[in-house]
Amino acid sequence: MHWSRWGDPAEAGPLAESAFALVDTFIGTRETPAVAPADVRLTEPLAADLVAELAEIVGAAHVLTDHETRLHRTRGKSTPDMLKIRSGDGSDSPDAVVRPANHDEVVALIDWAVRRHVALVPFGGGTSVVGGLAARRDGFAGVVSLDLLRFDKLVEVDRDSMTVVLEPGLRGPAAEALLAAEGLTLGHFPQSFQYASIGGFAVTRSSGQSSAGYGRFDSLVVGLKVATPQGTLELGNSPANAAGPDLRELVMGSEGAFGVVTAVRVRVRPLPEVRTYEGWRWPSFAEGAAAMRTLAQAGMLPTVLRLSDENETAINLAKPSEVGGESAGGCLMITGYEGTPAAVEAKKAAVTALLAGLGGENQGPDSGQAWADGRFHGPYLRDSLLDVGVLVETMETVTFWSNLDHVYTAVKDALVASLGAETLVLCHISHVYETGASLYFTVATKASEEPLPQWLAAKAAASDAMVHNGASITHHHAVGQDHKPWLAEEIGPVGVEMLRAVKERIDPTGVLNPGVLIP
Amino acid sequence: MHWSRWGDPAEAGPLAESAFALVDTFIGTRETPAVAPADVRLTEPLAADLVAELAEIVGAAHVLTDHETRLHRTRGKSTPDMLKIRSGDGSDSPDAVVRPANHDEVVALIDWAVRRHVALVPFGGGTSVVGGLAARRDGFAGVVSLDLLRFDKLVEVDRDSMTVVLEPGLRGPAAEALLAAEGLTLGHFPQSFQYASIGGFAVTRSSGQSSAGYGRFDSLVVGLKVATPQGTLELGNSPANAAGPDLRELVMGSEGAFGVVTAVRVRVRPLPEVRTYEGWRWPSFAEGAAAMRTLAQAGMLPTVLRLSDENETAINLAKPSEVGGESAGGCLMITGYEGTPAAVEAKKAAVTALLAGLGGENQGPDSGQAWADGRFHGPYLRDSLLDVGVLVETMETVTFWSNLDHVYTAVKDALVASLGAETLVLCHISHVYETGASLYFTVATKASEEPLPQWLAAKAAASDAMVHNGASITHHHAVGQDHKPWLAEEIGPVGVEMLRAVKERIDPTGVLNPGVLIP
Repeated sequence: MHWSRWGDPAEAGPLAESAFALVDTFIGTRETPAVAPADVRLTEPLAADLVAELAEIVGAAHVLTDHETRLHRTRGKSTPDMLKIRSGDGSDSPDAVVRPANHDEVVALIDWAVRRHVALVPFGGGTSVVGGLAARRDGFAGVVSLDLLRFDKLVEVDRDSMTVVLEPGLRGPAAEALLAAEGLTLGHFPQSFQYASIGGFAVTRSSGQSSAGYGRFDSLVVGLKVATPQGTLELGNSPANAAGPDLRELVMGSEGAFGVVTAVRVRVRPLPEVRTYEGWRWPSFAEGAAAMRTLAQAGMLPTVLRLSDENETAINLAKPSEVGGESAGGCLMITGYEGTPAAVEAKKAAVTALLAGLGGENQGPDSGQAWADGRFHGPYLRDSLLDVGVLVETMETVTFWSNLDHVYTAVKDALVASLGAETLVLCHISHVYETGASLYFTVATKASEEPLPQWLAAKAAASDAMVHNGASITHHHAVGQDHKPWLAEEIGPVGVEMLRAVKERIDPTGVLNPGVLIP
Repeated sequence: MHWSRWGDPAEAGPLAESAFALVDTFIGTRETPAVAPADVRLTEPLAADLVAELAEIVGAAHVLTDHETRLHRTRGKSTPDMLKIRSGDGSDSPDAVVRPANHDEVVALIDWAVRRHVALVPFGGGTSVVGGLAARRDGFAGVVSLDLLRFDKLVEVDRDSMTVVLEPGLRGPAAEALLAAEGLTLGHFPQSFQYASIGGFAVTRSSGQSSAGYGRFDSLVVGLKVATPQGTLELGNSPANAAGPDLRELVMGSEGAFGVVTAVRVRVRPLPEVRTYEGWRWPSFAEGAAAMRTLAQAGMLPTVLRLSDENETAINLAKPSEVGGESAGGCLMITGYEGTPAAVEAKKAAVTALLAGLGGENQGPDSGQAWADGRFHGPYLRDSLLDVGVLVETMETVTFWSNLDHVYTAVKDALVASLGAETLVLCHISHVYETGASLYFTVATKASEEPLPQWLAAKAAASDAMVHNGASITHHHAVGQDHKPWLAEEIGPVGVEMLRAVKERIDPTGVLNPGVLIP
């Protein structure tokens, strides 16, 4: 992962000419390059005596304090994170990076952190876009990034139960490669797939682009092993049970604040023999959304189902290589089918009949395949636009179907009111349920001289629009530092007390990812 | 509900001759009648000054201290509960029964209970079989049953989102009748359906006989309103989200220990146009179970799917009216299909092809319909057998598929070892998932002179066999008082601390259903 951009620079490429022309016309561009990496001002490295203690636990080779290692584990990948790091502000860097090899070493590190009152920040893929890696520093003897890089094994395959145990440091592609060798797949492909980790998926309740077919990550998890300051928590003896509150659901979404997940048992599926994607065109976002609702409530969801609104369709955002190119208008829906040939054929026939009957226009495989080819490329665009003075960020929410259009309008209005009329607001629905759906917004506007406060004000306005209108502050990006005020509003004072009670009991000295999640 | 038996005496009827002959031969019978209801020794009624204070909150008509009302809210419906009440032991009776009309009255009652240090036991249908209604009395100024009887409304119907808001005191049939008038159904039909309540379903994580098609109750719940000593908790703005831990999953399974649920938003489905049931015969339990696993992992579950083992099939327990009659041997599977005619036909064709291919023998609709007709009748049998000195009880667990046969054998062996060779142990699988399934045991043995300790020893042996072998202490009966030691083992000391932390923060004086759930 690049220190100040998404992903692999080799994959980024320059901004397509059509996209540059589009933003130059609508928004205007100017060069706003990043500082040199050596010029980013990090915190002081961890004190030598503490480094020596860490080395006793994990070995000297696995305690790192050099500039580059710490720079790469500074914050996540939100636009505010990029704005800060590009300007040379590395004030949230860890003072050291430690790489334990196994559960017992994590337990020992937690004990050490409690004893020395050092903040521990679990690090998987570093893809947080909500400030999940920027621990509070005040009052701690230091901040250490607990990098789970070496937790990279497929521990167990249970073919009868179709579950596997994965270690949390496995990134998406590595996990899928290990599973593919067994003829299996998780089917979890969020946009961050190429970098994000199994542990991160679990503790942030990630949701992938194939969630309609495979389910949200939290619905795939059946077991968790967690190292906490109070000892080890092992959960998950069954798909579901009635043995009190489901504590797995308390660990999922806990973002490292209650403990460090060291193993995850997940549901897996057979590797699909066929993967096929199609495009559909709808006259309006509302009609396309109603069709999605019909599919979900009929129990007829394809594996992938997403719908771009008129704006997003117009600029071809679903196909990053063609952004700014010509569009046929209306709203583009992508349907994807994965599985055995027979299952894919049956599902595709049923979905096709239903969508055609509702007024959808089948566009065949081209636009579907274009989406599939570019599915992990979106974040690169953001960085190319930041280079030319255009602020781009995404935000997302979820609500019940009856409230979806209302929230859609409210968030768009709030963003334009905050950022000005020359702001592009694009939206798609990419996760659907029987009772509701997500909304995923992409916002582009001209960066002011003070882009950070400019964006934070817009983000606050949009977040207010979500939560004040009865939607959630996040469908799959999680809470981190950035969403805490709205989480507090969403779950109310009694909900906040529940979270605080668990935090204070399990992590009484507060060393686990301080400042994150708990309002 | 009868005070010392399940359900409605008019529906009970005498034990079928064939069943009587069976148990008389295998186990032996003798008359063991219950005492007269007036002879059950209850606690002293609540002190008059406290009754007067309650009357100020809910009105005098809704504070009851008479013998009959309190008798009917004494404990639940487990075999130990029946043994105690039949012998005249009413020592767990509430000292008063209070019937609030709305959320604000529940809030006021909780405030009063905290102030007066009176234990409050939420009461829905009174169907607990795990001691969920037998609050700890020590140290409290009294025990009051908070009867949710008047919470009986369908509050809201959201047709776009296919959700409704139901009040917690609605019993199964009343809830389904209100929904049927709207063309909707919950599809939640546990064996306790005729008496159990919406609130009880939520706080115990109930699972119904149609769970394969409609889902467990906790998977139907999308929102909850809860009155707690710290104020009101309202959860649920979306089908799913990433806004931290899912606190709905902390309230579900909480059995009244964290608060009183006063409204539940649930997912609903269209009322099925067709309901059809069939029987299948399998050579062995293992082959039938493997077929269920194949269906679940192929995403091809019918609405109802259950499989009796050889013993249960032999005595026709799936058809209560024919218990003890002739059986064709093997293992009986019931498949049920509900929905539109087209959906039922398509699903039935696919399932039929798959089951036939795996070696199942289709027996047509007769045994399926017989099961459907008797589906709520099982508990009546238990009481008829108790009358003739035969102890009958059920217990259930859930584990992953790879562990199912091992747990099945371990529990059977533990029961026979504890109760002696002349014990009938029957089992069925009635809830299946991609990764695992439930096991539901029915045990019958001759009652000793001291049937309560006899049964408690057997229950402990079976519970040990479940949890020591990696299964859950309960798939859908919940924890109550009876399962607490095994819950503690199942979630471990860190999990126990999480529950205690929430309990102590939200209910610091411990007045909410004391003694239940929290180890």
